Amino acid sequence: MAHTEFPTKATHAQTRAHNASLVLRAVYDLGPISRAEIARLTGLTRTSVGELVGELEHDGLAREVGRGPSTGGKQPTLISLIDDARHVVTLDLGERTFTAALLDLRGEVRERISRDLDGTDGDAALALVYDLVDELLARPHEPILGIGVGAPGIVDGQGTIRWAVNLSWTDLPLGSLLHARYGYPTIVANDSRAAALATFLFDGDDRPANLVAIKVGRGIGAGLVLDGELFRGDGDGAGEIGHIVVEPDGAECHCGRFGCLETIASAPAILRAAAAAGLPEQTLPGLAAAAADGDETALAVSRAAGRALGTAVANLIGILDVRDIVLHGSVTVLGEPWFDAIRDEATRRSLGPLARETRIVDGGTGEDLTLLGACALLLTRELGLTVHR
Amino acid sequence: MAHTEFPTKATHAQTRAHNASLVLRAVYDLGPISRAEIARLTGLTRTSVGELVGELEHDGLAREVGRGPSTGGKQPTLISLIDDARHVVTLDLGERTFTAALLDLRGEVRERISRDLDGTDGDAALALVYDLVDELLARPHEPILGIGVGAPGIVDGQGTIRWAVNLSWTDLPLGSLLHARYGYPTIVANDSRAAALATFLFDGDDRPANLVAIKVGRGIGAGLVLDGELFRGDGDGAGEIGHIVVEPDGAECHCGRFGCLETIASAPAILRAAAAAGLPEQTLPGLAAAAADGDETALAVSRAAGRALGTAVANLIGILDVRDIVLHGSVTVLGEPWFDAIRDEATRRSLGPLARETRIVDGGTGEDLTLLGACALLLTRELGLTVHR
Repeated sequence: MAHTEFPTKATHAQTRAHNASLVLRAVYDLGPISRAEIARLTGLTRTSVGELVGELEHDGLAREVGRGPSTGGKQPTLISLIDDARHVVTLDLGERTFTAALLDLRGEVRERISRDLDGTDGDAALALVYDLVDELLARPHEPILGIGVGAPGIVDGQGTIRWAVNLSWTDLPLGSLLHARYGYPTIVANDSRAAALATFLFDGDDRPANLVAIKVGRGIGAGLVLDGELFRGDGDGAGEIGHIVVEPDGAECHCGRFGCLETIASAPAILRAAAAAGLPEQTLPGLAAAAADGDETALAVSRAAGRALGTAVANLIGILDVRDIVLHGSVTVLGEPWFDAIRDEATRRSLGPLARETRIVDGGTGEDLTLLGACALLLTRELGLTVHR
Repeated sequence: MAHTEFPTKATHAQTRAHNASLVLRAVYDLGPISRAEIARLTGLTRTSVGELVGELEHDGLAREVGRGPSTGGKQPTLISLIDDARHVVTLDLGERTFTAALLDLRGEVRERISRDLDGTDGDAALALVYDLVDELLARPHEPILGIGVGAPGIVDGQGTIRWAVNLSWTDLPLGSLLHARYGYPTIVANDSRAAALATFLFDGDDRPANLVAIKVGRGIGAGLVLDGELFRGDGDGAGEIGHIVVEPDGAECHCGRFGCLETIASAPAILRAAAAAGLPEQTLPGLAAAAADGDETALAVSRAAGRALGTAVANLIGILDVRDIVLHGSVTVLGEPWFDAIRDEATRRSLGPLARETRIVDGGTGEDLTLLGACALLLTRELGLTVHR
């Protein structure tokens, strides 16, 4: 028998929390805004709006910022969010350099520190996370709203990292550990997924319903925004395209298989291929410069990595028919030769009508995207806000 | 600036239509059911429920079917849906044999006719559609609620077939044509997507949130049910995996490219491979029988097709992390050797934790799935019902 769901009445407390959230959203999204306008938009009474705005002022989240144009009577007082009223601790654990930052309620970075992993993983990598947060919290900051983390690998809904291949983390309850140590609300999400959310949120008003953002750096992962929502999959592993095997007879991967996409198209794999081809460049910017100078070997290495990724993009197009694909991460510094190879291969391997409509966009190195996405997830869960500037 | 949406009041007509739909759903989902129980579930007054049930009886959609147990007072009269009160014309255009059928409100097939395409396509294939519907409507039937069509290829939200490779249809406004000719509400959807919806709806109460159903027959296409909804993609092409290129140097495809999945793993491709290998069998059941008798060549042909499909399944797992994958269509008669090859290849090419949780299930030849899915789409749009038995 199918489920037939019928609406139920809300309790008084639920109603009040809902109304408070409506007022905060109105101030966040539309401020500076008058109490009368908030009442008109939300359908709440002037009295209720006055009380709820009073609470926001009391909590230091909003303040009066002058008067707006009169609509007949006296000029209304305008209420504005205090962007810097709260700080969110954010972490990006997706690269060889871990980054921690304090972001405000608009996702602006207020403090940032980074530390290189220096080849460590496991417990040492976890200790580095603690060091970074300790150091960040030792700096001057506003009241902390919570901690938002973007971590590589498969991260479940409780903030446990089921498997992060490159960090040798298995079933690490990172969310619980951070909550226990610091006492703040904590959210842990897959880094590529957090970055995809940030890309989606800052795409402006004409944002597409669907967007895939692929992070190509130390690892390769995609975040899928489908019909406006982050898609997680059944086991929180949606978008883990870095470990799809593309060359069954290829190189061994950290995950234990052979020929995963990451063994060909990730930053370390590209640098290994460059070294194997006898190139002296040991960084991606160096490789990009050599290719720009016309070094055929450097060009060939860039293109080979691009083609492998293009095959994965063709699969994304064929399976999802998503038109907006953003590539970001350290490998994007390889520039046009790499992007052209991706676009060529994706087009060559896709059904014509689908491929013609696809936009494959350079999202840049995107250092802040994961931080911003982690912040956005926390603001949505804690305050019901959809982050924007 | 982000969109801030606030609820608005419904008009009286909207409210009445909504209430009528609630009552019909209650009778459809939970009948036989008393008026009192409907009132309790929907929150409507006894008077409103009485009026709305009266309308259903007047329209011949429901009737009184006796009395239920007393809950104190007199025994309540029970109302039940008349399953056969309306018929839906459904069409499956996805195989070499077109099928048309009359289905009742529970998706039971009441009449069915099939006709072979005999190699025709384009206008001749369209004429065959008209012939089938004409013939079906000449048979005794209940009032027709509408026409639901499952068609191969890329079908847009207006029922226009943008491109159906195997039928040589391009921008064919099939929905409008059928509506103009027969005057009934008409819905046209991709056949694999319709079949996926039907698979999902009949998976019972413990159905998963996500499900991929892959039709493997004359063509290959997947329907994606993500978070409980059919996912269409930006250009209505989601799930068109049959034209992802898997062997760039492979055989030419009807779509104009080379080495699409359909050139290796579809029914015609498998029979071509069997012939090329010198096998006398000219049908899939024949090939399956030869393999079951231990014919190594027949086994090899089945396994090669399975491995190609397994690669596509690995991509589905890696991108979507969907645990429930159902294969249906004429090729499923190849049985265990084919399924084993799919499972092996999908596992070999997927990240361990994801692959271990995946269930790849035999959905059978699934002749009725597309018909049932097309019927379900029409019932939802016209009556607000979620079809079930």
